[in-house]
Amino acid sequence: MTQLTPEESRFLARAVALSRKHMHQGAGGPFGAIIVRDGKVLAEGWNEVTSTNDPTAHAEINAIRKACRQIGDFSLSGATLYTSCEPCPMCLAAAYWARVDRIVYANTRIHAAVIGFDDQHIYDEVAREPGDREIPMLHVPSEEARAVFEEWLGKADRVEY
Amino acid sequence: MTQLTPEESRFLARAVALSRKHMHQGAGGPFGAIIVRDGKVLAEGWNEVTSTNDPTAHAEINAIRKACRQIGDFSLSGATLYTSCEPCPMCLAAAYWARVDRIVYANTRIHAAVIGFDDQHIYDEVAREPGDREIPMLHVPSEEARAVFEEWLGKADRVEY
Repeated sequence: MTQLTPEESRFLARAVALSRKHMHQGAGGPFGAIIVRDGKVLAEGWNEVTSTNDPTAHAEINAIRKACRQIGDFSLSGATLYTSCEPCPMCLAAAYWARVDRIVYANTRIHAAVIGFDDQHIYDEVAREPGDREIPMLHVPSEEARAVFEEWLGKADRVEY
Repeated sequence: MTQLTPEESRFLARAVALSRKHMHQGAGGPFGAIIVRDGKVLAEGWNEVTSTNDPTAHAEINAIRKACRQIGDFSLSGATLYTSCEPCPMCLAAAYWARVDRIVYANTRIHAAVIGFDDQHIYDEVAREPGDREIPMLHVPSEEARAVFEEWLGKADRVEY
């Protein structure tokens, strides 16, 4: 199950090369990613959290955003995400929302933890019940908020995603 | 535990108002969020997935990105995220990376499921082992990728986040 074609191996190596290059250039953490569909690279991304002051600017998020801009569609159905490290929960969930077909990764969340990144910790937190998390979560039911959801269902020209 | 001060109630109501306004204007799904610190609104966000072709453009992600741009920092430590609906795993993890202090929400992932959104499904998927998910995940260990992580530790001027 860890067999890649030579072309696929080159795609993963490209994600790793991006992680090295942009980390050394000071863009952010050591992470790179690319999005490929039908043998074509739709977009490349790398971590830019600290250089752009954007905590969501992970390699995978950046690659997904760029790829979607590139093709003018919010769906990346049929695409593969190659990433130098197992996606964190934010990036994994983004891959689900983007409807990618497959994810190929090199380092794991365990390796990320060793060099100081919180991926495993956030996986643990996301799996907890909202009331049991480190970040306090307060659920305040709202009739108004429920009504907006009803209005969504009643919106004839809504675009689903 | 569901008690908010009048000011906090107004912040949550504002997030709900944003969800309604921008949904009706066609920006995307019925979701709104704001980031507040020290009683000041740092940023407002709303779902723009379908209008901007960006599957990551959820209300909370947009609000976090804007708030960080506003203050010129990748940390929102000390801030509260008010959102019209319980964050999906992408947005919840983003809140962790952004180091917010608290999350207040109105609708839940169950309500979101009723109107057609995948939040609960993605929570289930994120909690699974990588090999057991609907999106196939292929782990391909790479010496090169491991080396880049070592280089991160050796980078004297690295900025941690």
